[in-house]
Amino acid sequence: MVLKSFVEVDIDSHFPLENLPYGIFIIKSSEQQQQLPHPCVAIGEFVFDLSVISSVGLFNGPFLKDSDCFHQSSLNKFVGMGRPAWKEARTTIQKLLSVDEPTLRDNAILREKSLLPMSKVQMLLPTIIGDYTDFFSSMYHARNCGIMFRGPENAINPNWFHLPIAYHGRASSIVVSGTDIIRPRGQSHPAGNSPPYFGPSRKLDFELEMAAVVGPGNELGKPVDVNEAADHIFGLVLMNDWSGTTISPWIVTLDALEPFSCDAPKQEPQPLPYLAEKNSKNYDISLEVRIKSAGQEQESVLTKSNFKHLYWTITQQVAHHTINGCNLRPGDLLGTGTISGPEPDSLGCLLELTWNGKNSLNLNGLPRTFLEDGDEVVLTGVCKVISMFSYDFFFLLLPLFSSI
Amino acid sequence: MVLKSFVEVDIDSHFPLENLPYGIFIIKSSEQQQQLPHPCVAIGEFVFDLSVISSVGLFNGPFLKDSDCFHQSSLNKFVGMGRPAWKEARTTIQKLLSVDEPTLRDNAILREKSLLPMSKVQMLLPTIIGDYTDFFSSMYHARNCGIMFRGPENAINPNWFHLPIAYHGRASSIVVSGTDIIRPRGQSHPAGNSPPYFGPSRKLDFELEMAAVVGPGNELGKPVDVNEAADHIFGLVLMNDWSGTTISPWIVTLDALEPFSCDAPKQEPQPLPYLAEKNSKNYDISLEVRIKSAGQEQESVLTKSNFKHLYWTITQQVAHHTINGCNLRPGDLLGTGTISGPEPDSLGCLLELTWNGKNSLNLNGLPRTFLEDGDEVVLTGVCKVISMFSYDFFFLLLPLFSSI
Repeated sequence: MVLKSFVEVDIDSHFPLENLPYGIFIIKSSEQQQQLPHPCVAIGEFVFDLSVISSVGLFNGPFLKDSDCFHQSSLNKFVGMGRPAWKEARTTIQKLLSVDEPTLRDNAILREKSLLPMSKVQMLLPTIIGDYTDFFSSMYHARNCGIMFRGPENAINPNWFHLPIAYHGRASSIVVSGTDIIRPRGQSHPAGNSPPYFGPSRKLDFELEMAAVVGPGNELGKPVDVNEAADHIFGLVLMNDWSGTTISPWIVTLDALEPFSCDAPKQEPQPLPYLAEKNSKNYDISLEVRIKSAGQEQESVLTKSNFKHLYWTITQQVAHHTINGCNLRPGDLLGTGTISGPEPDSLGCLLELTWNGKNSLNLNGLPRTFLEDGDEVVLTGVCKVISMFSYDFFFLLLPLFSSI
Repeated sequence: MVLKSFVEVDIDSHFPLENLPYGIFIIKSSEQQQQLPHPCVAIGEFVFDLSVISSVGLFNGPFLKDSDCFHQSSLNKFVGMGRPAWKEARTTIQKLLSVDEPTLRDNAILREKSLLPMSKVQMLLPTIIGDYTDFFSSMYHARNCGIMFRGPENAINPNWFHLPIAYHGRASSIVVSGTDIIRPRGQSHPAGNSPPYFGPSRKLDFELEMAAVVGPGNELGKPVDVNEAADHIFGLVLMNDWSGTTISPWIVTLDALEPFSCDAPKQEPQPLPYLAEKNSKNYDISLEVRIKSAGQEQESVLTKSNFKHLYWTITQQVAHHTINGCNLRPGDLLGTGTISGPEPDSLGCLLELTWNGKNSLNLNGLPRTFLEDGDEVVLTGVCKVISMFSYDFFFLLLPLFSSI
């Protein structure tokens, strides 16, 4: 059954009533008025201001009634409250926005206050990110990188199959979609005994990723059980891991993604008991990367992949991250790593797509290996139900790329 | 000249009027009253509550007069204000606490409100740490590790001499001195083709480090010039990089450390221009690690090192960290890496001191290689002026180590 809202939702909209992703917005204003950021969900072409709804007492369930979680300038407090509060919020919001519910539908003043056209708002980072970890969970990506740098014999180290490998990334440089990115500078390997080369990065890449947003954390020294790990994940964002990690403004909840869950790939060898899940699942999310060059009008599709290709699940990532006693906190970000698929046109970064620059891609007739100044990179993710009805629901990420 | 306070300061105290390290405290209370954390400095056996002094208008200089920086529960706002505000605070506090100044000396009520015995307070983390980076800046440490794991021929990779290497650490698990640490568990390398070993860490080590606390940050994409980097560093803490990074509650300011500055080691090859400093300096800080085993009454001194042994300076660390456009934020932590000296008894960790467990140390008659459950590790740092007068000033770090 398709849920129907009194808010007009286009058939192609990423934001039907089944999605309701969370974000933080401020009102765009030429007068630079002191407007505080507010939590919201997306519905059609509108943001739905949850602080307004909370102020008039419409969150009246047991978890949210007396909470100030929607009067914060980030979602950290809300995501830290856990699944019962998330379910209550989702139920309340779906009901309030539904076509059959008069409370909001028939109250023009409240509608005007709470439903703001997206064109009038600016989206900010949805959470304060205390820590950001980036995994390396796609076997196809690991294998391709291994073949390129170590040869086909030792493409994947044996320990890759025993644990979800990750590195710890920098939280300060995570920016929201739309933020200009500056090409980094640094040292690179010298030829022979000459001093190192210093200058702008010559092989700037994108990396198609998604990231889990941590809900309730865990105490230092108390690992999260893999079979309870889903309760520690609020939802997913799209992520581009380039220079200044870019994430989508919208967090799509695991509750919204549940209809699109699917079996994760079979793991061989069997993981150790702390990583063995009763129910190992991924989500069927179609991912796409497009690029628009500075001089070109048209976007080119570079790759099409899918979240379901991940070998290590996000719940295994949480279990492994905490097994040593490490504490996660609400709002922390766990990146999946580049999500490559098995096909040549499903690779998640230019390094793989061009085989480290050896094979040029065709960008509307122009050859291309790595990113160039002025490029605009667009990541999208779509969950599609194909049955008697058809709709897309998901969200757009539109990071810009600009020169120094 | 020794500065003299009306507060009694023992000749052996780490907290004379020349030091005035900053911290955050709460009042210990059996009634668990809702007392907010306050910024303070240490003087003798007291903490000096800066929120009280601010409330009565005694911070009356141009930078602090109208600021609420001492009414925060962390030092982030104050450290972000920069050196002019820090100098003003130091001058004001030194004057207020001086033996010749009647304002506080002759006001018993204000003295009682603002000067609290250390035994009555609990120290918290001094800043909210957005990001934590740990460098690898001691050449002696790098060489010893290299010899152990790669042999004497390739002890140090050539690029080590071109840039201060670092990894990005986790902020959530940084705890204040005194916090119990739990031995981590995890996978380790299997023998042959058997599955990996899983269990508690068998070679738990301490690492004697210090860390710079970032003051004003920089914008994403705007690197900090190496010759201006000192203005981005508020001060130093002692740090033990084990499992759950432990730092001292006190930040000793660079202004307090200035009398102990000394030339940094000559760098060969010359660093690239972005790392070349007009004035390359370290600080002469004597460091010591002691250990007390669960069963033993007495502490054993394990090593004596010095901050001045660092090859890469903290200002070079800031310049390198930001050269790629990375943004630092107030309160960020930049660890030095293990500080080893040139002598066998100046090595900064058990890995080096026992040569990866090959040589036992003598702990009051008992052989010892790595840390054992119940150990208590104590790091101290002391700056000493030897002239007509003699005094120590510095701070104690006393992390406890306990079993799972």
